[in-house]
Amino acid sequence: MNAEPYDATPPGGGTAGEVLTRYLHERAAAFLRGLSLRGENEADADALLRGSARRIGGVLHIYGPLTDPGWAEPLRAELGWLSTTLGREPQYAARLTRLLDALRRLSITVDDQEAVTVGGAPPPAPSGGPLALGAARAGALLERQLTLARTRAHSASLQAMGSSRFHALADAIAVLVSEVPLAPAAAAPATAVMPPLAGQAYKRLADAAAALPLHRAAHPYNADAVQASLGADLTADLQDAPWHQVRILLRLSRYAAEVTRPEGDTADRQRLTDAAALLERHREAAESAAAVAAAARTPRIAPATAYALGVLHADQRHEVEAARFAFSRLWQTAVPGPRGR
Amino acid sequence: MNAEPYDATPPGGGTAGEVLTRYLHERAAAFLRGLSLRGENEADADALLRGSARRIGGVLHIYGPLTDPGWAEPLRAELGWLSTTLGREPQYAARLTRLLDALRRLSITVDDQEAVTVGGAPPPAPSGGPLALGAARAGALLERQLTLARTRAHSASLQAMGSSRFHALADAIAVLVSEVPLAPAAAAPATAVMPPLAGQAYKRLADAAAALPLHRAAHPYNADAVQASLGADLTADLQDAPWHQVRILLRLSRYAAEVTRPEGDTADRQRLTDAAALLERHREAAESAAAVAAAARTPRIAPATAYALGVLHADQRHEVEAARFAFSRLWQTAVPGPRGR
Repeated sequence: MNAEPYDATPPGGGTAGEVLTRYLHERAAAFLRGLSLRGENEADADALLRGSARRIGGVLHIYGPLTDPGWAEPLRAELGWLSTTLGREPQYAARLTRLLDALRRLSITVDDQEAVTVGGAPPPAPSGGPLALGAARAGALLERQLTLARTRAHSASLQAMGSSRFHALADAIAVLVSEVPLAPAAAAPATAVMPPLAGQAYKRLADAAAALPLHRAAHPYNADAVQASLGADLTADLQDAPWHQVRILLRLSRYAAEVTRPEGDTADRQRLTDAAALLERHREAAESAAAVAAAARTPRIAPATAYALGVLHADQRHEVEAARFAFSRLWQTAVPGPRGR
Repeated sequence: MNAEPYDATPPGGGTAGEVLTRYLHERAAAFLRGLSLRGENEADADALLRGSARRIGGVLHIYGPLTDPGWAEPLRAELGWLSTTLGREPQYAARLTRLLDALRRLSITVDDQEAVTVGGAPPPAPSGGPLALGAARAGALLERQLTLARTRAHSASLQAMGSSRFHALADAIAVLVSEVPLAPAAAAPATAVMPPLAGQAYKRLADAAAALPLHRAAHPYNADAVQASLGADLTADLQDAPWHQVRILLRLSRYAAEVTRPEGDTADRQRLTDAAALLERHREAAESAAAVAAAARTPRIAPATAYALGVLHADQRHEVEAARFAFSRLWQTAVPGPRGR
């Protein structure tokens, strides 16, 4: 298998340390910009902080041999903590939007078919009989639970941002703007040492993707993902985990390419971006299905509410299946090397 | 559009009346054979009776101008009554099998993935946590309701078979073995009058199929059919009706071809048979989903049961979608004339 289909050769000359330092400087500056933006627009600021933290952490991982491990490893752990902490609130918000949109779509009645709008409309009104009433209640239940989770995540974010742990991290990033603690290997030309490291990251991705049941997933309506809907809780987790893993490896390969080819998208990077978007949809649908299952365990809910949640759960598991289908088609046609299994 | 892609030319010569009479004789004989078989094997006998009744009724409809309408119309109504009455019991049995199989598939746990068997196994044991418990209860509820419906349908069949209405119908069929009341048009050569009538039947089919949203249905995971899951009851009915109509027209075209080309399957007839099987799957899934929705209206069911029924309902609506997908692909590649819309 060609483990490195895109050209990871760094532009121009320079040592690996120079190329890596340039990238980390930029990301560290973006991080600090996010920090100063926080008073104006918290959501945008957090997105910038998370994006920078993820990229710095990812790049320190991929190009690990080029930096001082005693410095990089603890920093990566702190960056992971921050991006996870800040990521929760927008995830809950997106999950609620996704589930209310899905409920609206599922509750569509003949009269609505023309007038349907996706987006900011309220949950379905209980005009369509008992099923629609259950859907409205399920929507209200999910809204209550996910709004509560979101509020808690927001508090946790605020608390994290005010903590000494965060201040230590921000200090470490501020240092990164001026200097990066490099390893001796970083003195070699970038063209000699960086492509093999990016290639390793891509190989891990290609191997993990090849181990997915891509051939089966590329058959529409295989009903694999929905099996988990009434299975033991572990079933969905075990089934989804390899796909989530590929999503993370995709992200790492994208960051690896950003370092060595900072200018614009190539076709190969577009492919990675598209594949990542599909597996992001996979993750959102899987986590939304899990949130619906959790809501269904609320004590004393009405059967009609539980029924609507069951429909919604299966719907989200079908979205999981649809995302796998689209990813399999994309990956099998676009990737070099052996096709599926 | 070529409204008649298969060769409907009757083999050999003869008048239309002769060809039609030969076919009706055979079917009437099969009907009487079914009647005498009833003491030995009720299910096989009923299948023979239903199949013959449907074929005689369908052929009298397609080739209506060739028979005495004063005789054919009332006979068709009685044949319709009989095949509907006898059809209910096997439909309930098939629906229960389908739904229990689906519940088993949906409740599959990691340990089961190897050992799964489709068919006669009992409903899932409540070993996989609260979701699996709900699935087991949902299975028990469906089993109770559909077994009751089946028993009632069986009684209704027995009552119908013992009625004077049935005896009058059996007498009419017995007459059919010896003579068919023909119209003057039946004196014309079969090759002159039968192909246009079969062509009309096929044109109705082709027009109805072309009016289906085939283009959209041929896109996997369009999520159209599942919209009806939480919509008003009418939504699913209105959405499914055009597909059911095409299923009936497919059957009529198949019967029309049987009359004029009794020997074996041609490729065209195989195509009609395959298409009919897909729309039969569509009907079964749609009716199963409706049965699940009805079961969910049972008073005082536990939320976990309602949840499992919701998952099952959405699953069956996805089966509806999958059948539409397969039909659209088959019909769009195989049928001459304009493709979908």
